[in-house]
Amino acid sequence: MAARGAAQPRAGPTSPRAAPRRPAAPAPSAAPAAAAAPAAGPAPGPKPLVVVGSVNADLVLAVDRVPAPGETLAAASLQTFPGGKGANQAAAAARLGYETFFIGATGTDANAPLLRAELEGCGVRLDHLAATEGPSGTAVILLQPSGENSIIIVGGANQDSRSWALPPAAEALLRTAGAVLLQREVPESVNTAVAEAARGAGVPVFLDAGGVDAPLGPRLLAAVTLLSPNETELERLTGLPTDSPGAVEAAARALIGSGVPQVLVKLGSEGSMLLTGPDAAPLRQPCVPAPRVVDTTGAGDCFTAAYAVATLEGQPPRRALLFASAAASLCVRRVGAMPSMPSRGEVDALLAEVQ
Amino acid sequence: MAARGAAQPRAGPTSPRAAPRRPAAPAPSAAPAAAAAPAAGPAPGPKPLVVVGSVNADLVLAVDRVPAPGETLAAASLQTFPGGKGANQAAAAARLGYETFFIGATGTDANAPLLRAELEGCGVRLDHLAATEGPSGTAVILLQPSGENSIIIVGGANQDSRSWALPPAAEALLRTAGAVLLQREVPESVNTAVAEAARGAGVPVFLDAGGVDAPLGPRLLAAVTLLSPNETELERLTGLPTDSPGAVEAAARALIGSGVPQVLVKLGSEGSMLLTGPDAAPLRQPCVPAPRVVDTTGAGDCFTAAYAVATLEGQPPRRALLFASAAASLCVRRVGAMPSMPSRGEVDALLAEVQ
Repeated sequence: MAARGAAQPRAGPTSPRAAPRRPAAPAPSAAPAAAAAPAAGPAPGPKPLVVVGSVNADLVLAVDRVPAPGETLAAASLQTFPGGKGANQAAAAARLGYETFFIGATGTDANAPLLRAELEGCGVRLDHLAATEGPSGTAVILLQPSGENSIIIVGGANQDSRSWALPPAAEALLRTAGAVLLQREVPESVNTAVAEAARGAGVPVFLDAGGVDAPLGPRLLAAVTLLSPNETELERLTGLPTDSPGAVEAAARALIGSGVPQVLVKLGSEGSMLLTGPDAAPLRQPCVPAPRVVDTTGAGDCFTAAYAVATLEGQPPRRALLFASAAASLCVRRVGAMPSMPSRGEVDALLAEVQ
Repeated sequence: MAARGAAQPRAGPTSPRAAPRRPAAPAPSAAPAAAAAPAAGPAPGPKPLVVVGSVNADLVLAVDRVPAPGETLAAASLQTFPGGKGANQAAAAARLGYETFFIGATGTDANAPLLRAELEGCGVRLDHLAATEGPSGTAVILLQPSGENSIIIVGGANQDSRSWALPPAAEALLRTAGAVLLQREVPESVNTAVAEAARGAGVPVFLDAGGVDAPLGPRLLAAVTLLSPNETELERLTGLPTDSPGAVEAAARALIGSGVPQVLVKLGSEGSMLLTGPDAAPLRQPCVPAPRVVDTTGAGDCFTAAYAVATLEGQPPRRALLFASAAASLCVRRVGAMPSMPSRGEVDALLAEVQ
């Protein structure tokens, strides 16, 4: 769940959504970059992306200010949006036409069907979406005229251990996936277990560093193929400054030094930077400019998911970075998180334009 | 929506709920007390009670404190409860076995079906419950360890003018009702129009003063048969102290002086006081003690609704006060608002016990 800058109305999912298509098997010469890091499993093919993570209902209240203790005040509006970094990333990948499963759980509250329907509408496969008795993960966002948002997070099903007793079929899916994509809005123990299961089967593990602000455990770090923080997350994880391109590179190298094979830093309007190893030169990708930035919600999720999809399709790293940048550029042009994720056709058209 | 003192779990509706029954026509000697005030219409009979008002989803978040601007913090729990003073009062009356219609509107959000189902489960007739595009009325309640709650109210459908373009059948129902029961969680203009339509047809109008803290307009005051504030509301409406029984009586007489035929003051554990005219002696009713007060949410709504039901059934004022006190005593013994409204059988049993 990303904070929002303004109380903008959200467009519903109006653009036509193609059913996800399995990509053609990549040519042997374009083997997935990230898959090179773990022990090689069976030959890469069009295996699905599996996103394990959070799904939230975001309740956005426009208020004049935060109420004092004991105070009652009126909100000008309330809007409910599907969100959660896991769900956003699954939606982004599915919208890009790649077969994507989401493993996670809604609650059993009134918002649960809404969350399920939104993911379904994006073409995400929900074979392993559980419904855990109790509230869905929820973020109550108090939008203030100052532009500062106060956010109250309810972990709900995302943080409930009952959500994460995965059935054997889900475990099997993890081991036969093309890649597993994680974020930090579920318990660290869940991410660690999932990453170790995937890595043990030779499946690349992408970890978006967004979510809880806490150190990453060594077991999780050791099981990850690629770690993707934004600038703030990179600074928090390393304790190093990130105020210049050189500083960002040094901080990313510090993460590589801690045992992560690859680091992909998201720098917002400054683009992105990929390090593929301790001795590799950084690959830098400027952002693909948007004519007008309408809402950056979900743009980081879109970028990480698009990079994972491109990698699974066998696109080489530089091309995958451009692909992800184009997807994120389209995402910020529309309001919302899931509703703003671009289709494959839109990304392809933008790429044809900028090249 | 009443504030809550503690983050108590809410019991679901576990007690069996009898279908509402039309009461037998009252004996001529027991004509409704409140109906005596307006111009006499047709002879009183078992006409339904019509509650016009608010229906809310109450979202209760247990937090350590209210977040500062720009801050994100975690809530320990989130629970969603049906509420709203209009819905609570309709539920209370229906549970007491009196045929009760609710005129109001949910939104079209995920909570709307929940609100409708709760009212239906209580036996309320929903022929005129609208669904207005947008959010349902919502109260976000931040429960703090200090016991102080901060509340953010979203008017939603309750405050939306589209909710209140009543169809001819609803207008007709108002004019043929046994009584109309109002509160102050919908626009004042709605209450005024409804009260004038009812009063014009000789239908008694009960107005619970709970809801918005604002002066009552002269047109609404002129159309009301009985006004029921609690102690705080009485003080706010009159600007007079209410710190002793004598002061309460004087303040209630001030309301009578402003043109309201009858005033029924709810005094919590101090019971209640009814004034039936400028020269009448006050009727005082002590509260019916509860062995243990578990949750006072909705107790005022229960009291007002039970008094209206008793009056419609032709119970004389003193008996109606006792009936309402018994109902409220049962209400505070259980958690929740609608789920804590007592059945007719429970009230009758308690009355048999205390007499």
